[in-house]
Amino acid sequence: MTQTERPLDVVILAAGQGTRMKSALPKVLHPVAGRPMVAWAVKAAQELGARKIVVVTGHGAEQVEAALGGSGVQFARQAQQLGTGNAFLVGADALGDTGDADILVLYGDTPLLRTETLRALLAAHDAQGSAFTILTGELPDATGYGRILRDAQGHVERIVEEKAATPEEKAVREFNSGVYVMDARAPELARRITNQNAAGEYYLTDLLELYRQAGAPVRAFKLDDPDEVMGANDRTQLAQAEAILRGRINTAHMKAGVTLQDPATTRIEDTVTLGRDVTVEPGVILRGQTRVADGVTLGAYSVVTDSVLEAGVTVKPHSVLEGAQVGQGSDVGPFARLRPGTVLGQGVHIGNFVETKNARLSAGVKAGHLAYLGDVTVGAETNIGAGTIVANFDGVQKHQSQVGAGVFIGSNSTLIAPRVVGDAAFIAAGSAVHEDVPEGALAIARGKQRTLEGWSRRYWGGLREGVGKKLPWLAGWLERQ
Amino acid sequence: MTQTERPLDVVILAAGQGTRMKSALPKVLHPVAGRPMVAWAVKAAQELGARKIVVVTGHGAEQVEAALGGSGVQFARQAQQLGTGNAFLVGADALGDTGDADILVLYGDTPLLRTETLRALLAAHDAQGSAFTILTGELPDATGYGRILRDAQGHVERIVEEKAATPEEKAVREFNSGVYVMDARAPELARRITNQNAAGEYYLTDLLELYRQAGAPVRAFKLDDPDEVMGANDRTQLAQAEAILRGRINTAHMKAGVTLQDPATTRIEDTVTLGRDVTVEPGVILRGQTRVADGVTLGAYSVVTDSVLEAGVTVKPHSVLEGAQVGQGSDVGPFARLRPGTVLGQGVHIGNFVETKNARLSAGVKAGHLAYLGDVTVGAETNIGAGTIVANFDGVQKHQSQVGAGVFIGSNSTLIAPRVVGDAAFIAAGSAVHEDVPEGALAIARGKQRTLEGWSRRYWGGLREGVGKKLPWLAGWLERQ
Amino acid sequence: MTQTERPLDVVILAAGQGTRMKSALPKVLHPVAGRPMVAWAVKAAQELGARKIVVVTGHGAEQVEAALGGSGVQFARQAQQLGTGNAFLVGADALGDTGDADILVLYGDTPLLRTETLRALLAAHDAQGSAFTILTGELPDATGYGRILRDAQGHVERIVEEKAATPEEKAVREFNSGVYVMDARAPELARRITNQNAAGEYYLTDLLELYRQAGAPVRAFKLDDPDEVMGANDRTQLAQAEAILRGRINTAHMKAGVTLQDPATTRIEDTVTLGRDVTVEPGVILRGQTRVADGVTLGAYSVVTDSVLEAGVTVKPHSVLEGAQVGQGSDVGPFARLRPGTVLGQGVHIGNFVETKNARLSAGVKAGHLAYLGDVTVGAETNIGAGTIVANFDGVQKHQSQVGAGVFIGSNSTLIAPRVVGDAAFIAAGSAVHEDVPEGALAIARGKQRTLEGWSRRYWGGLREGVGKKLPWLAGWLERQ
Repeated sequence: MTQTERPLDVVILAAGQGTRMKSALPKVLHPVAGRPMVAWAVKAAQELGARKIVVVTGHGAEQVEAALGGSGVQFARQAQQLGTGNAFLVGADALGDTGDADILVLYGDTPLLRTETLRALLAAHDAQGSAFTILTGELPDATGYGRILRDAQGHVERIVEEKAATPEEKAVREFNSGVYVMDARAPELARRITNQNAAGEYYLTDLLELYRQAGAPVRAFKLDDPDEVMGANDRTQLAQAEAILRGRINTAHMKAGVTLQDPATTRIEDTVTLGRDVTVEPGVILRGQTRVADGVTLGAYSVVTDSVLEAGVTVKPHSVLEGAQVGQGSDVGPFARLRPGTVLGQGVHIGNFVETKNARLSAGVKAGHLAYLGDVTVGAETNIGAGTIVANFDGVQKHQSQVGAGVFIGSNSTLIAPRVVGDAAFIAAGSAVHEDVPEGALAIARGKQRTLEGWSRRYWGGLREGVGKKLPWLAGWLERQ
Repeated sequence: MTQTERPLDVVILAAGQGTRMKSALPKVLHPVAGRPMVAWAVKAAQELGARKIVVVTGHGAEQVEAALGGSGVQFARQAQQLGTGNAFLVGADALGDTGDADILVLYGDTPLLRTETLRALLAAHDAQGSAFTILTGELPDATGYGRILRDAQGHVERIVEEKAATPEEKAVREFNSGVYVMDARAPELARRITNQNAAGEYYLTDLLELYRQAGAPVRAFKLDDPDEVMGANDRTQLAQAEAILRGRINTAHMKAGVTLQDPATTRIEDTVTLGRDVTVEPGVILRGQTRVADGVTLGAYSVVTDSVLEAGVTVKPHSVLEGAQVGQGSDVGPFARLRPGTVLGQGVHIGNFVETKNARLSAGVKAGHLAYLGDVTVGAETNIGAGTIVANFDGVQKHQSQVGAGVFIGSNSTLIAPRVVGDAAFIAAGSAVHEDVPEGALAIARGKQRTLEGWSRRYWGGLREGVGKKLPWLAGWLERQ
Repeated sequence: MTQTERPLDVVILAAGQGTRMKSALPKVLHPVAGRPMVAWAVKAAQELGARKIVVVTGHGAEQVEAALGGSGVQFARQAQQLGTGNAFLVGADALGDTGDADILVLYGDTPLLRTETLRALLAAHDAQGSAFTILTGELPDATGYGRILRDAQGHVERIVEEKAATPEEKAVREFNSGVYVMDARAPELARRITNQNAAGEYYLTDLLELYRQAGAPVRAFKLDDPDEVMGANDRTQLAQAEAILRGRINTAHMKAGVTLQDPATTRIEDTVTLGRDVTVEPGVILRGQTRVADGVTLGAYSVVTDSVLEAGVTVKPHSVLEGAQVGQGSDVGPFARLRPGTVLGQGVHIGNFVETKNARLSAGVKAGHLAYLGDVTVGAETNIGAGTIVANFDGVQKHQSQVGAGVFIGSNSTLIAPRVVGDAAFIAAGSAVHEDVPEGALAIARGKQRTLEGWSRRYWGGLREGVGKKLPWLAGWLERQ
C-alpha cells in the first residue's frame, strides 16, 4: 500500500440523472454485482483510508442519501445541475477546511475503478510532487472523451473536449477519465471556474489551466486498463460492468484455490468468502455475507445469501439458502430451502422439498423429504419423516416447539405448535399431534382403518361413466368381476 | 416506415430438405428463439404489410403447412426440387395475377433478416427506380456465396457462382444473399429460366440476366450486417442464430429500461413485453404471450410462459409459471409452480413447493408451503396452511371447490372436492374435510391422540437390532432406561 | 485409424505437485468435464490400443493410484522429483522389456489432447521412419515453452529452453509440447541423461540429442491447434480447459442432430449418448452413463446423472434424475427428483415436488404432486394422489411395499410399509394405511369430521388481539357478527 503522508479527502460526484437508464431509480443507485454503483466509489474511498468522504447528490438525492445511510459519508446537495465544476465546489464546501489534505474526485457511475489503481495514482501524485494529477487512459479510438494534449516535453498542457477538438487532436488516444487528485489549493482555485462557454456550464477540467496559471505542477497518470473508467450510462453498459466485475471476482477465487466449473455463469458478490477446495457447480449465485469453508460443494443453480457453510458441507443442486448456518459435513438439497434462523448442527441431512425457518437442528438430524420445519428446535439424531409439518401458526401468531433427541416422527405427521416432544418419543405416521408427548412415549393421533371389501366394483362400475376410455386396465378389471 | 405505393407480394422459399440438420423435422421448422425459422420470414413479410404471402413447400410440406396454419399465408407445393427458379415460379403461380405489385423473395432458413433491413431494401428499390434489386452483403471472405460483379460504373452486371468463379472473381467480397425484390414482370421473365447448366437446375439468379436483356434497371442494396442473411443449415448454425436473436432482443429491453443481470443467460422470446425497471436475474426464461409490468423482479432460473405479472410482483428464484395471472405486489416462490388458470389477486403470497392450477386466489391469500391448490376459488385473506391439498380428482373427473374469505386452513389438511368452506371458517390441522363447512364454523376431521408412555423403550430395545450403530444417542438412552 | 504394426506402450507422467492449484487434491486429479485430468490421458492411451500403460505418480501418489484403480493401468512411483527424464525412466522400468514397442509419453495435466491427434502423430512417426518424434505446436508468441530449432533442411536440430534462448531463438514460434513417441531404444538412451545443468534436474528433452548422437532420425509433428497441449496449472486454466472440452462435446452432438438451445450453458459429459432430435434447453447438465433416446426433450436447468431416458420422454425444467430409467413417452417434472432404483414404465407421469427412490412404476401410473415413493412397486394405471407418502422407514430399516394396478390412492395418504394394496383398491384421501388392503376394497383410515358452528367468532373474537391489523377482512366480519 502506497500512501502519502498527508490526509486524503474524497468528493464523489453522484448528482447526475442518467436518463439513458430509463429508470425511476437514480443512475448511481443501479446495482452492479450486488452493490449500487455509487457504493463502489464509497468502498474505494474507504479502502484508501480517506479522512472525509462527501457524496454530491442531485437527481434523486433523497434516494441516494438513504441508500448510503450508515456508510459514514457526508452528503452535499447540488441544487442545480450547473456542471462538474459546480458539483465539485458543492462537495468541497461540505468538506470545510481541509488543511493540507489532498482531494480526490471520484464518480458515482464508474464501478470498475480499482482501489489499487487509485493507490497507484496517489503514489504517483506524491512521488512526482504534482499539485494536480489527472487519471488518464488510452484507447485506439477515444471518441467521446476529452483528449490529453501534451507539450514537447511530454507534460500535460491541456484537455480538449471532443466537440472543440481539431481532427489532429481527435487522433490523440490519451483521454481524460475525469478522476483527479489535487492538492489543498483546489477548492480555492475551483471558485475561479466560470461558465463562459457554449454550454454555460462550470467545467471541472478548467482546474488544470487554473493550476498551471498558479505555476503548480500538473501531471497525468495513465491507467493500464481503460475499462476501469468506463461509465455505466445505460443498462447495456451496466451489464458489461457487471460481467467485468464478476470476472474479476471469479478469477481471484480461482487463483486462490476454488474450482468454478463454469465461471461464465457463476455470480459471487465481493462480500462472500470461499475456502480452499470449494467446488462451485454451474449457475451458482452467492450473495451478501456468505462464508463458505474448505471443501464445500455448491450444487448447480443454488442461490445462497448471508449464510455460513462449515467445512465439508454439500449443497445439492437447486437449493436456496438465506440466513442459514450449516454445520460441518451436513448435506442439503436438492430443492431445499433454508430460511433465516436455520441453524444445522454437524452431519444434518436436509433432503428435497424441505423448508426450514427459525429452526435449530442438532447433529445427525434427518429431514429427507417434503417437510416444513418452522420455529422449532430438534435434538440430536431425531428422524423427521416425509411430509412432516410443524404447524407453527394459529392464524395470528407463530408458536415455538421443541422436539427432543432420538425422536422418530412418522411420515405425514403434523405437530401443532406450541408442542413439546420428549427425547426418544415415537410419533406414529399420519398423526396430528395436538398434545405434548413425554420422553419415551408413543403418540398416535390418526383414525383407525376400516376396510370395505368389494367397494371398488360398486364405485367404478356403478357410479361412473367413462372409466374404460381413461383407464383401460381398470375397465378390464371391472369386466372380470 | 418507408413503403412504396405499389402493393407487395411475398414468396417465401421453404421447400429444402436440410439434411445437415439430421432431423425428422423439416429444416425450416426448426425453432429459433421460440419460433420456427420459416415463421420469422412470415412475420417479416407481415410486418412489411404484404398483400399476399405464398410459402413454397416441398420436403415435409404437410408439417410445414400445419405449422403455419392460421397465419394467413397461402401454400404452394413444389413437386420436385428443380432449383430456386422453379420454386419461385411455383410460388408466383400461386400468387396469380399480381397486377403492378412488387414481389419480394425470402427464405425459410434466414431467421436473422430484420424487417427494418427489408424496408430499406424496398425503399431503395423504389427510390432508384429499379426493376430488380438484389440484397447483397460484404464479407472479408465470401467463400460459398455467389459473388456480385459490377461494371465500371459500379452497376451490377452479373452474379457468378462460387464454382464458376475465377480466382479474381473469388476475391470479390460482395455476395448475393438470394433475397430479391422484383417488379411485376418477374413471373413472366422467370418462365424463361432454363436448366441448361451443369447441375440441370433452374436458378433464380438467372433472372438478373433476363431483366438486363429486357433493358430493365438492375440494382443492388448492400446490408450493413452480413450476419442477417446467414442461413441456418445445421444445429451449430441454429444455435448461433439463436444467440444472435437473443442478443438483439435482450439489448432492446436493456435500452428500454430493463435490468438484465446476466444477458448471456437470459432468454426472452420476442413475443414478451417487459415494463420499466423490471429486474431479470440470471438464467430467466420468458416465453410466449408473457406480459410483465413495471418494477417486477424475476428471480434466477425462473421459467415464465404465457403469464401476466402485474406491477411490483416478485417472482423468487426457481419458479415455473404458465398461463398464470399474478396480481399487483404479489410474491411467488422460490420453487413455486403456477399452472394455467391460476389467477392471483393483489398481494397474494405463494411460497415454496406450492402448485396452483385453475385456482383463483383473492387479495391477500397466503399459501406459503407445500400445497396443491387445484380447481378452487379462495376468498380474500384466507390462510392456507403448509401441506394443504385440495383433492380435486376422484379417479375419473375433477371437481370444483370454493373456500371463503378469512378462512384458516390448518396444516396438512385435505379438502375433498367438491367442497364448500364458508367465510371465516377454521379447519383444524390434519383434517381430511369431507363435509362442507359453514361460515364461521370449526371443522375438525382427524383422529384423537392417544399417548402410550414407555412405549419407545420396548420398541427400540426389544424388537430391533442395530440401533446402536445407526443411532448412538438412542443406544445410550436405551442403556440409561 | 492409422496404427503402426508395432505394439505401443504409454508412459503418463503424473507426479507433479501443482502448487498453483492451491489444493489438497493432487493436480492431475482435478476434474475437467467430469473426469480427473489424468484419466483423460489414460482414456487417450486406451483408445490408441496401448498394450501397457504406466502412470508415474509422485505427489499424492496414493490418491492418484486410488482414483485410477480399476482402469487397468500400472503405476510407478517416482520417489523424488528429479525431473522429467527421471520420471520417464521410472515409468520405463515399470514397463519392463518392451521388445520392439514404441513408447509414447503423455502427461497427466493436458486433458485437451485429442486421440485423433495422437493417432496422426503415431502415423507420422511410422511413415517418416522416425526414431524419436516430437509433438510440436506453433504460437504467435511461444513464451514459456522450449523452442524447436531446425537446421537448414528443416530437420529438428534441438530444443532450446526459454531461459537458455537467445532473443533470436525466442522469436521462434514452434514449441515443444513435451509429448514424444520413441522407438524401443528410448529406455536405454534415457539412462544416459544427466543432471549436469543449472537446475540439477534430469530433462527428458535431452533424449533428442541422445537419439541424434545415436544417428537415429528425429522428427517433429506439428499440431493444428496448439490449445490441445495446454497444461492446466491453476484453476483458471482448468476452467478454460473445461470450456473447450465442453464446446467440443456440444458441437459434436449438434452436428449429429441434437438441438442445444444454448450450448454455452449446456454441460454434457463425454460418457453421455444422445439420440436424434433430442432438444436440450438452457442450463441442462448431463452426467455419467446417461443414455437419451430419440426425440427426448430435456427441460431447462435439469441435472441428469446415470439415467436412461427412452424415446419421446419429456423432462420438464428443474428436474434432478439419478440412476433412473424412464419409459417411452413418460413425462417428468418440473421439480421432480428421481433417485436410484427408479424404473418408470411407458407413459408414466411424475409431476412437481415428487420424489421416487427404488420405485418401479408400471405403465400409465400418475403421481402428479408432492409425493414420496420409496421402496415400492406400483401396478399399471394406478393414480397416486397429491401428498401421498410411502412411509418406508421405521427408524431402523427400510421396508418394501406393493401397490397393485388400477389403484386409486387419495390425496395426503400415508402407506405405512411394509404394505400390500391389491389391484383396483381405493384409498380414501387423508388415510394413514396401516393394514393391507385387499383387491377391490376401500380403505379409509382417517378421523370422522366434526363441525362446530359459531366457533370462529369465539376463536377470533374472544381470544386474540391484533386480528384487525393483520386481517382487515376478518376484523370486519367479526364486527358484523
